[in-house]
Order: sequence, then C-alpha cells, then structure tokens
Amino acid sequence: MAKYGVSVPLTDIRDGFWSGFRDTIVREAIPYQWAALNDALPGTAEKSGCMRNFRIAAGQETGDFHGYPFQDSDVYKWLEGVAYSLRWKPDSALEALADGAIQTIAAAQQPDGYLDTYYIIRGLDRRWTNLRDDHELYVAGHLIEAAVAYWQTTGKRTLLDTAVRFAQHIHSVIGPEEGKIHGYPGHPVLEMALMKLWSAVGDERYLRLAEYFIRERGKQPAFFEEERLLFGREAAWKDSPLGLRYYQAHAPLEEQDEAVGHAVRAMYLFSGMTDVAGETGDPGLAAACRRLWESTVSRRMYVTGALGSSEHGEAFTFNYDLPNDTAYAETCASVGLVFFAKRMLCLEPLGEYADVMERALYNSVLSGMQLDGKRFFYVNPLEVVPEACEWDRNKSHVKAERQPWFGCACCPPNLVRLMASLEEYAAVKHGEILYLNLYLGGMLRDSGLTMRIETGYPWNGVVAIDVTEAIQEERSLALRVPGWCENWSLSLNGEPCAAEYRRGYAVLRRSWRIGDRLTMKMEMVPRWVRANPRVREDAGLTALQRGPIVYCLEEADNGKALHLLRRGPDPETGVRWEPGTLGGVVTVRTSGLREDEDWPDGRLYDFREASEVRATELKWIPYYAWANRGAGEMRVWIRE
Amino acid sequence: MAKYGVSVPLTDIRDGFWSGFRDTIVREAIPYQWAALNDALPGTAEKSGCMRNFRIAAGQETGDFHGYPFQDSDVYKWLEGVAYSLRWKPDSALEALADGAIQTIAAAQQPDGYLDTYYIIRGLDRRWTNLRDDHELYVAGHLIEAAVAYWQTTGKRTLLDTAVRFAQHIHSVIGPEEGKIHGYPGHPVLEMALMKLWSAVGDERYLRLAEYFIRERGKQPAFFEEERLLFGREAAWKDSPLGLRYYQAHAPLEEQDEAVGHAVRAMYLFSGMTDVAGETGDPGLAAACRRLWESTVSRRMYVTGALGSSEHGEAFTFNYDLPNDTAYAETCASVGLVFFAKRMLCLEPLGEYADVMERALYNSVLSGMQLDGKRFFYVNPLEVVPEACEWDRNKSHVKAERQPWFGCACCPPNLVRLMASLEEYAAVKHGEILYLNLYLGGMLRDSGLTMRIETGYPWNGVVAIDVTEAIQEERSLALRVPGWCENWSLSLNGEPCAAEYRRGYAVLRRSWRIGDRLTMKMEMVPRWVRANPRVREDAGLTALQRGPIVYCLEEADNGKALHLLRRGPDPETGVRWEPGTLGGVVTVRTSGLREDEDWPDGRLYDFREASEVRATELKWIPYYAWANRGAGEMRVWIRE
Repeated sequence: MAKYGVSVPLTDIRDGFWSGFRDTIVREAIPYQWAALNDALPGTAEKSGCMRNFRIAAGQETGDFHGYPFQDSDVYKWLEGVAYSLRWKPDSALEALADGAIQTIAAAQQPDGYLDTYYIIRGLDRRWTNLRDDHELYVAGHLIEAAVAYWQTTGKRTLLDTAVRFAQHIHSVIGPEEGKIHGYPGHPVLEMALMKLWSAVGDERYLRLAEYFIRERGKQPAFFEEERLLFGREAAWKDSPLGLRYYQAHAPLEEQDEAVGHAVRAMYLFSGMTDVAGETGDPGLAAACRRLWESTVSRRMYVTGALGSSEHGEAFTFNYDLPNDTAYAETCASVGLVFFAKRMLCLEPLGEYADVMERALYNSVLSGMQLDGKRFFYVNPLEVVPEACEWDRNKSHVKAERQPWFGCACCPPNLVRLMASLEEYAAVKHGEILYLNLYLGGMLRDSGLTMRIETGYPWNGVVAIDVTEAIQEERSLALRVPGWCENWSLSLNGEPCAAEYRRGYAVLRRSWRIGDRLTMKMEMVPRWVRANPRVREDAGLTALQRGPIVYCLEEADNGKALHLLRRGPDPETGVRWEPGTLGGVVTVRTSGLREDEDWPDGRLYDFREASEVRATELKWIPYYAWANRGAGEMRVWIRE
Repeated sequence: MAKYGVSVPLTDIRDGFWSGFRDTIVREAIPYQWAALNDALPGTAEKSGCMRNFRIAAGQETGDFHGYPFQDSDVYKWLEGVAYSLRWKPDSALEALADGAIQTIAAAQQPDGYLDTYYIIRGLDRRWTNLRDDHELYVAGHLIEAAVAYWQTTGKRTLLDTAVRFAQHIHSVIGPEEGKIHGYPGHPVLEMALMKLWSAVGDERYLRLAEYFIRERGKQPAFFEEERLLFGREAAWKDSPLGLRYYQAHAPLEEQDEAVGHAVRAMYLFSGMTDVAGETGDPGLAAACRRLWESTVSRRMYVTGALGSSEHGEAFTFNYDLPNDTAYAETCASVGLVFFAKRMLCLEPLGEYADVMERALYNSVLSGMQLDGKRFFYVNPLEVVPEACEWDRNKSHVKAERQPWFGCACCPPNLVRLMASLEEYAAVKHGEILYLNLYLGGMLRDSGLTMRIETGYPWNGVVAIDVTEAIQEERSLALRVPGWCENWSLSLNGEPCAAEYRRGYAVLRRSWRIGDRLTMKMEMVPRWVRANPRVREDAGLTALQRGPIVYCLEEADNGKALHLLRRGPDPETGVRWEPGTLGGVVTVRTSGLREDEDWPDGRLYDFREASEVRATELKWIPYYAWANRGAGEMRVWIRE
C-alpha cells in the first residue's frame, strides 16, 4: 500500500480567473456573511442568530437559542474562510473581528470542554442523546477545522485550544471503551476534522477516534436505533423510505457500494473515510472508497458536478436518475465532492479524480454564489422555468435567483472556505512525484524546487511553468491532462518535449534548472457532451462544454421557451472573450434551430408533422454565471 | 340563447367494447366495492369504514367514525352505480343488497333531515362550521345523485325521500336569505346534484340553490375566510400557495378564465355551472363555461384526457405544464371532465366537446380500473419507471400497479357509476336535431324515431344505424365526425349520401323510414400525435393514437429502458386485433429505433456522438390497458 499522498499548497495566488472571485470573497462575501451571522443584513434575509447564540451561551446576553441545532457551524465555517483569506490577503481589521468572535466562542465553552450553544442554552442534561440528528459532532468538526486553519494562518491558539478541549471532551464520552457512547456522527465532518487535528497537534487519539467513527458506522445493531430506544428521540427522517440510508449508516462502510442518502453527509463521510484509509493503509477501506467514488461519479452525478437528485432528504435516489429540473444539487454537496476528490488524489494519483474535482469546482460550486458575492444558491438545477418554481411544488425548492440568506445557511460559508483555500487543492505529492491537478496561477514550492505557474485557464488551455529555484536532483512533475482535452502538447524552453502519459498525467522527469520554462498547451474548443444512455432525463439531449466549463442557455440571451431550441447542424460560430459580460467570461455561439413557439390554431394536440424550425444562433454562457441578470429560464441540456 | 340541450340515453346497450367492461363492473367491481365498503376485502387493502359509520350513526353499532369527513360519499357513488347496473342488468339479489344499505342510510338520518355520519358521530354541534373542508355539501350531492338514479331505475322512494329531506334541511340553513349561511360547497358536486333533483322532483328551490352556489362563489369578502374567522377552523390547504384557488373560490366564476386548483373540484364545479348556465340561459355564465373549458382542454390537459399536473393539491399548475412522470392525473378528474363535456354538449352542439369526452373516456378514465375490476388507479401517469416511484419522492404518488383500495376511495366507485351510465353520454337533442356524440351499440329512441346502432368502435370506425321505427316527419340526425378522423363517408341504404358538415357533425335531414340503414365509415389508422410546442415536457416527442385510443409502450412488450426507444422511419408495420391480449385489444406495431443501452466504458458523460441505434419493432398497446401484466416501465410519449 502506497503512503497517503501529501497536498502541496500553492502560494502567492495570482490568477486571472480565481483572483477575481477571491477578491469578491474578501471584499464582499466575508463582510456580508459576518453581517448575516449577526442578523445585520438589511431587507428580508432569513435570520441567523448564530453569534447571538454564542453570546447567550457565554452568559453575555439573555434569550433563547435560535435556529437549527447546527447553527454554530456557520460561524466556524466563516472563521475558516477568514483564516484562508488572511493567509492570502492579510487584513488586521478582519483579523481583529475574527479574534473578537473567537473570544465569544471561547467564553461559551463549558468547564468540561463541551461547546454547542444549542444544548448549552436549551439544557445540558439532554446533550449526547441524539447523535443522529442533533449535530453536536458536526459542530465540533467545523470548530476543529476552523481552529486548525486559524492557528496555521495566525499562529494564535485561542480557537485551537478551545477545539482541543472540545475534542478531548468528545474523546472522553464517545469511543470503543466501556462506559463510553459507542456512536458516531449523524452528520459527518468530524472524521475529516480529527484527521486535520491529528496532523496539526500530533495527538494520535484523534486519528484513532476518526478511525473508530469510520469502522463503527453501520454495524448492527444500529447505534442510531439503540440511541432512539434509549432516549426516545424520533428520527427527523423516520417517515422516509431512506431510513438509515439517509445517514449512510445502514451497513458498515466497507460493505457499502452505492452512494446513498443525504448527499452532503455522503461526501463528508467518504472524504473522512478516504483520509483514514490513506493514513492507516487499510486496503479494504481503500477499496470501499473507490467503489463509493465510482458510484458517485459514474452513476449519480450531474454534468455540472452536482449531487443529489431529490429534494427529499437532499439525497441521492438511484442509478442514472438525474432529473434536471427537480435536482437538489446542493452547493455543499459539490463542495464535499471536491473534498472527496482531493482525498482520492492523495490515495492514488489518477487524473480522473481531478477531472471530477474541476467539474464540480468550475460549475456547481461556483454557481452557488452571485457574482457580487452577496446572494447564494442552495440548489443548483440544470433547468429552470421560473413559473414552474412558483406553481409546481416539486420544483418549489428550486429558485430562479440566488437568495440573500437561508435559515439553514450551510452553503454560503462552505463555498467561501473552499474558494479561499483553493491553493490546497492544486497539487499532491506521491513519493518524489509532484502532481499538478488544478491549473491556477501561483507559486509551487517543494523541497528546493520552486515554480511559478501562469495560466489563462479556464478560458484558454495554456499553462506556463517557470522554474525559479532548483536543486541538483532529478524530480518528476506530473501535469494533469484533463479528460476534456483531446489534443495537448508540452514544450520545454521552446522545444517540443516528450513526456510519459500515465493515468491522466503527462509525467516529466528531469533535473530542473532555474529559468526552465515548461509550457503545456491544451486545445480548448467547445465540445458537445452526451450523457450515458442510461440517464433517462438526458436522452436525446446534448450539452456544451469548453475546457472545464459547462455552458448553459439563458433566457436573457436566447429568449423564452428554451425547450424549443435545438442544436444546429454546424459547429460553433464564435468563441468570444467578453470582458464586460458577467464579470468577464468566454461566451460561445453555436448554430441552432428554434421551433415555432405555438401552432396557429392554438390546439393542444394534433396529428401534424413536427413544428417548423428556423435557423438561429444560440448564445451560451458559463453555467456558473447563470441567474446574474434577473430571473429567467435556463437550460444546460438541449435537444439535438 | 338556445335552450339547454336534452340528453337522450341509449337503451339496450350491446357493444363489443363496452359490454365487456360493464359485465366486469356488474360481476366483479360492484361486489368487490361492496366488500371494500364493509371492510371485508382480504389482504392489505386500506380500511373503508364506510358502512360501519352509517351503522354507528344509526345507533345500530357503537364505535368511532373512521376515515375522511367525506367517507359517506363512497357508498352513495356505489349505490348510484348499482342503480345504473340494475337498469342494464336487473338483479334482485343486488337490489336487495342496495335496499338494505339504503335502510341503514335512512336510519342514520337525523330528525331535521341532516345526514352526514362524520358530524352525527363526532358531534352535531360542530356541523356547518367548515363548509370549506368538511364536505357536508359534497356528501349531500352524492346522496342526491344516488337517490335520483335509484328512484329512476327502481321506482323506490326511500333514498329519494332521504335525499329530499337532506336537501330541504340544507335549503333551510344555507342560502341568500338573512339568517342563513351565505356559503357554498368546498368541494362541488351538489350543484350538479341539485339540478338533477330539480329535474326529478320539480321543486324549483333546488335550481335556485344551485344557482346561488354558482353565483355566490368567489365573491368578496371570501366566505371561506369569514367562516374561518368565525369558527377558527384552519384550511387544510392553508400553507399552500394555491390559497382559495384550490377551491376555485378566489374570484366570482364569471370572472375566472383559467382552470386552477384541485382538478376534480374544478370539473365538478364547471359541470354544475354549465347546468345552471344552460337552464337559466345566462350568457355571461355560458361565456365563462366556454372560457374555462378552453383553458382546461387547450392548455392544461394531458393527451390521455387526464387533468392535474401536480400532486400538490391534486391540482392544475400553469399553462402547458404537463409533466408526464409526476402527473397527478386523477381518475376522478377525467370522470369530471366527461361530466363537463356532456354538459357543454347540452349547452351547444360542438363536436370538439365530444372529442374531449371520448379522449378522457377511452384513455384516462378506463385506465383507472384493472381489467379484472378489482384494482384501481388514483393517479394515471403517462410515464412510469417503477424504481423512480420507489426512490424519487416527487413520484411516490405514482404507482406502477393498481391498488386494492384507498383511504380516500373516491375514484373506484366514480369510475363505476360513469361506466354503468355511459348510455346517458351518447346523444343530445337540440331542437329537432339529434346529435350522436359517442359511438356505442344500443337503441336510440326519440319521439317516434327508433334506431339500432351497431359499431366496431373503437377498434374500427364503422357505425351502422338501422331505423326500426319511424314517423312521417323530417328529422335531423347529426353524426359526430371525430377530430382524429381524416377521411369519412356516409352511405344510406348502400348508396353514398351527402350530408352537411357542421361544427364537427355530419348532419342528415330526412324523413326516415323503417329499414333505412345509415352507415358511417371513419378511416381509423394509427396516427402520430404531437403536442403544442409550448408543452415543454413533450418537446421532440410523439405519441401514437388510433381512433380515440391513445397507445403506450410497456416494458412487457418492449423491454426495459423505454426512454431509449425512438420512432422509426417507416409507418406502422402492423395493426392487429388480438382477442387474447389484455381482454381483447388492437395492438399496433411500428418501426422503431433503440439506442444502445450503455457505453462500453460505462462513463457517465463523454464527448461522443449520439449512441448507435439499431432498428427494432415497437409494440404499442392501448394506454388504458397498461399495468395489467405486473409492474414495469410505461411511456406514452417517445422521441422522434
């Protein structure tokens, strides 16, 4: 068993594409979300109560708890995002704001280390009686992730100490030892978090507890059922046919072979499981990770990298069931898929994992935020007719425009923390080989070798890598050849250069010298995508992709009744960089056909030939940028 | 304003198609449903409690009320069906059974005429406090309809007297006069029923009360809102965006122009409204009937004649929104559409009304019953994948097989009473013109003219009409030329005969003689149907119809993954009468194409050309007969 790969973060991110989004996050989204967490948003945004809950729990204010049992996690995710933001753009005012929040959080912690404002306010006697639905372990996980990140950026220990105290408390009440609760998180994330904490503070108890959660899950008799019998607390999902599948707790993980249930839970769980598989070197667990990966991405994922076919349980349904207009496709699930992909890349270097990672990242993750950073999608459908969202209850979870905030506000800060830490997803090292998985501009440093990466990705496929520091030693650089790329070439210092193609990578081994310039050119042309014929909802349809970007048609460009548009006979008629459109995007124009919108006599059914079509031009925009020009129809898949 | 047309019932029904279904109803469905109403079904059928409620209300048994507030209506609809059945096939044992049930019903009636077991058992002090949701007036309507039918068939007055007493009671508590409740039914049907009662017993108070219900509905301030404020009883649909639209009570009927809300309520209401418009000759009401008809059938109806696009509220959604796989398409709504069509034909003779009537009748009404008469559909979808019904909550209301009974069992007896009284839907007289709207075998008698109708409809388009009795007087016979028929011809005594074509009818005026044989030949070939391009869910799809019968593909004939089937280049390859298949049906075979079911590498998305197709033969069966061979996939619309 190979050792678990090590993520090598880029530094000094300067990227034509991502820097803009990250600027928006720093300037707009982070302050906006802080206002949300403090119920200071103007207008009709849903109330958070998050920071107030902490003040009440800390005895600084009186009142009742507001929100969901997992409300605390919103500020933790926000703090984690702030930590990454400060790493990129130091900002003393923001840091002071975060320090203040941390003081409040720390003040709410109980003497025994417990820290969950829901139970602190509502009554500690009931804590640890509903691991299944009450999210105490989920909240702990996000606290730990924030604490590690904040400590790594600032060196400040307050939040880390708080997190360690809570982790120690959890270790004292849950685990395999007699007298402890033999349980595991109803909503995973703590597994991943404990692995980070172990890596940060070196206390092996955290690795063992994460491993325990992974191995204990799904054993019979089911812990969640025993807990229910013991404390009489009914499951939030008791009337759902999903049952324990909702929690991926229906069978031991090593025996599971389909991604089922709540999609975010699944992604977080599989991510933590992959960490454990990688660090422990357990081949059975690793095989399960591969099976569940395969189930997720080969049978249950939208072309945008979105997950969750049904609103009911925000869940997976069954193989190849991917309805475009009733999709749940939660932003958090795609964020979770990026986490899972990153960890699979640490498990083993396979370009396909990174293909999925960028599919989610550039499409269904990015679509979660309005271009101004102040509105968010929870649900990322692939087909929208605003009238249907209003009148068809099956689509009432689908919104035609992003929302200012959510009662359950998991997605906005989740997206922020991922975007602000993208540098950690770009490269992985296995042995002496450095695998470059995401193309973004920045510096890549590893053991004496330093490279500056510059790229026009995702708008063009040129990546230039300049060696700025080197040592006398042969080292391998593996550049990912994306799955969307048919023709690519590599040149070194202006000369064509041969590389070995291996499992999705062009691998070049060499003794690098300062001044070396390696250039990867990936042909980036619009290409028509088709779905596997088993996908009922995409039968006879095609989508457009250019590079990693999935495109869509919007009413703003193509008029109403998008279902009447069909792919035309000719290839694309124009690929255009439009700096003034949607924050700067490459648009694609293709020949198209438009059917007549109505029959002259207005009949509903008739024995007539197919409607007349006339030639038209379709204007495609990147899917992630949809719904930035008011509510209107949108479609990813159109008829051929 | 023309006088309201008069329905002229056929007699002596002997029909190759309908007699079989009616035999099944008499032999199987009626006894089966009696067992259901008495909780005597074997197996897992849902409990009814209906007859027991009456016995409890009559003091013959103790216990609590079971079921919905409208539970009584199930036995009334059953009795109405029995009345029609006895008219067709006298059966003293069945009549004795019905008489017994009627005794129990009559015994439950209160001294003041009130009769609703829900309130009799649960407390009369609360009666008439929730017209909106508690269905007292709905139950009364079905009592009246049953009573009139039973009296007409048997001459027995017990149920009619009971109904009249309840009607008088209602008249004493509801109406425009001061001191009465100024309300109207939450679930219409009483409007139609009162018109029948008026016609049966000649008491004009019932006409006036029906008219009052129609004119009062939707006036502001809304009665249902005033009632809620007065009695504090919240609406069953209070959290629905439908609001008063659910009840078609959001605006006066004369101002409504779209069919909205609960589809069955809408059809029953529009039917009663048409009766009132026709009998009162009010042109404003008649215009509203036409508008609401047009909205229903030109913008909100499935090709099978099904209504109700959404499970939520069992309701209409918005124009051209007709999803095939999440359709509600309740059997009762199509039954109601037949009621509405019949009344529009009385309002004015337009062949299009009858086109819709037969579309509903031969397709979505008939599909409501299993061929053995013992299982029923509530929901009649146009596309089914059994796995989706199980795992996609949006489709959990869709069943892949008919059910033994329902907690809310409105559909099974509704279908029975319609099928058993089909003779009342065949012909309408306007002035001296007799319009023949449905083709079925039987005797048509009117003022000295008697004709025997024989036909192979709906399997062939030949109708032979023999005059068996005549008087010396010119009379016009209008034979409907169905909308599906492109070529037709008429011959009289073997010679081609010219007829005037008028608004969907071939009209022949003549002094008929005994022995005259009029033959109508309608070319009946399979034809491809298309939906108006505004129907998103049918874009690029086509369906198959032959005569009035809409066809479908089933897994049993065509294998799994029906979405991979496409229409082939050639026309039909075989139209075959298969007496041993599905109770005897004409099947249609067409050339088709089948896409490969998977990609060799199993990828989910790829940049490849459309899948390989191979030629295949598609076998189509009548839609109404689907799901009689176990659970499997079914589709009405396929790709071209």
